[in-house]
Amino acid sequence: MAVTAREILSGDVRAAAQLMRDLDDEIPSAIRTLKSLYRNTGRAHIIGVTGAPGVGKSTLVTRIVSVLRERGKTVGIVAIDPTSPYTGGAILGDRIRMQEHALDECVFIRSLATRGHLGGLSRSTIDIVNVMDAMGKDVILIETVGVGQDEVEIVKVAHTNLVVMVPGLGDDIQAIKAGILEIADIFVINKSDRDGADRTVREIETMIAMGDYAEGEWVPPVLSTVASTGAGIPPLYEEVKRHRAHVSQDRNMERYRREKARVELLEILKARLIEKAVADLERHGLLDPLLSEMAGKRTDPYTISEKVVDHRFEMHLLQGRPNRARARGRGRR
Amino acid sequence: MAVTAREILSGDVRAAAQLMRDLDDEIPSAIRTLKSLYRNTGRAHIIGVTGAPGVGKSTLVTRIVSVLRERGKTVGIVAIDPTSPYTGGAILGDRIRMQEHALDECVFIRSLATRGHLGGLSRSTIDIVNVMDAMGKDVILIETVGVGQDEVEIVKVAHTNLVVMVPGLGDDIQAIKAGILEIADIFVINKSDRDGADRTVREIETMIAMGDYAEGEWVPPVLSTVASTGAGIPPLYEEVKRHRAHVSQDRNMERYRREKARVELLEILKARLIEKAVADLERHGLLDPLLSEMAGKRTDPYTISEKVVDHRFEMHLLQGRPNRARARGRGRR
Repeated sequence: MAVTAREILSGDVRAAAQLMRDLDDEIPSAIRTLKSLYRNTGRAHIIGVTGAPGVGKSTLVTRIVSVLRERGKTVGIVAIDPTSPYTGGAILGDRIRMQEHALDECVFIRSLATRGHLGGLSRSTIDIVNVMDAMGKDVILIETVGVGQDEVEIVKVAHTNLVVMVPGLGDDIQAIKAGILEIADIFVINKSDRDGADRTVREIETMIAMGDYAEGEWVPPVLSTVASTGAGIPPLYEEVKRHRAHVSQDRNMERYRREKARVELLEILKARLIEKAVADLERHGLLDPLLSEMAGKRTDPYTISEKVVDHRFEMHLLQGRPNRARARGRGRR
Repeated sequence: MAVTAREILSGDVRAAAQLMRDLDDEIPSAIRTLKSLYRNTGRAHIIGVTGAPGVGKSTLVTRIVSVLRERGKTVGIVAIDPTSPYTGGAILGDRIRMQEHALDECVFIRSLATRGHLGGLSRSTIDIVNVMDAMGKDVILIETVGVGQDEVEIVKVAHTNLVVMVPGLGDDIQAIKAGILEIADIFVINKSDRDGADRTVREIETMIAMGDYAEGEWVPPVLSTVASTGAGIPPLYEEVKRHRAHVSQDRNMERYRREKARVELLEILKARLIEKAVADLERHGLLDPLLSEMAGKRTDPYTISEKVVDHRFEMHLLQGRPNRARARGRGRR
């Protein structure tokens, strides 16, 4: 049974879960539903929570969700787990850690495995965020490691980005800090009961102070938390609200909406293009022979890509001559 | 001046650096050169060095390079830096850390910034590895954080993957360990003079012991190092050589070559497809208006992507009617 837009708009959790599964399986009716839901997106406050493994992102997210629930907000959580293409094991881990909220009807949790999809993480994340948004969730949290290229793109769909660190990772972290400065709306030093927390806070504050901020531009605050005890969470929530008010200013919101549209379009387009190209190659039995040719150095990926992009393979196929050797040129002997 | 394949094959460092820059700029002659070089790739031993920020990857790579240089091997290093799209600052950091080898003519170092290229990290990494391979480098090291989707794909072009960790990141790391098990050929516990190193080694060994390895299949060893002092590097190098011998067995090499070809083709094809599609949209002045329509919820990224994939935009353009509103449907008022 195809999930309807109406079911999603009514906030039906079961329908939403079904739609997300159908989108994973690329069922056409699911994509149609998503299309018609798009106009109902743009209401939720989207928060990115980015940090290396081990900094306590999940615990922090759990705490933030508790605060939101106390205030009667409905919440969606997307946990992006880069390790899950391999084992799926981490998904369970996330679910267990989130179990405090798992039984709460108003918190919708989705752990995201890529399962080797060509389109990758970005497209799936965007789809899920849009479904949760259309469901009427007040706040959507995207939890991500945030160091891969895809992840770096994904956080651009968030209104507010928290970058989470722990004290004492040493000098090697310096480079990361510098790079991450531009995505962080709020820095969170978690596990701040550890040695070196003050130094880490000072280092980041120094870095921010060196930044070149225009009048009226947001300057990221640095907050200390101990997510495991809940220390520092209320002030963090206040900063999140303050940032939301900042983004809501007309000029900022306009810029955010265009940037979000750009990321959405490029990531979805990228996914669709490669999926279509590979499906075409496979349907015509070209992919495996081409890989063999490449492994044997009789052709190269640049030449093949050029042909696919220029539809030269397609033209050949339309002419009804499935002679692979000819299609690939004369490099055989 | 276009760089010739001959210059690269002769190992000319200056020509190689120029070719890599030209590839970054997507200069057609550079792509032609790369095409003709492809048949000269496949000789280097490619080693992936993957680990979170702060585990000491660069120091470890520097140590491995020293061992390789003592044995007269020529080396290429590709440092993938996910933070560099933002500031470029980390590139300098890497270069400084690598300076021990920077003056050595036989070590070719390339830090990889994505600079917002649509095609992303994967395509650039593959290009650079292929150039270094054609140059005749005996060993190519790819240093990566390895948690993003792109990075996870990239390491599949390596023969041997080292996964680097440090002791004592706590329970949160458990999930990552489980996920990373399938890419690791060798586990390296670096900074093993720290508290908890023995426990971390035992935990990983336990996890490996639970793995279901077939007769003759490679079982990843777990090695302890202190890269800053050089402790543990010679045994690590022995394991790298042992793994290389394992991969060199016919059946394994055949599987590796096909997997490498698959990653190369899909990543290069993905990059070319999105670059072409966006260039087409921009050339016809469609991209910006489409983003505005999306931001205003008058169209959605799924519909646009479908049209692009089906060449419906292209058909419209070929008919010479650059009326944007009509091309995008009638959702205007």
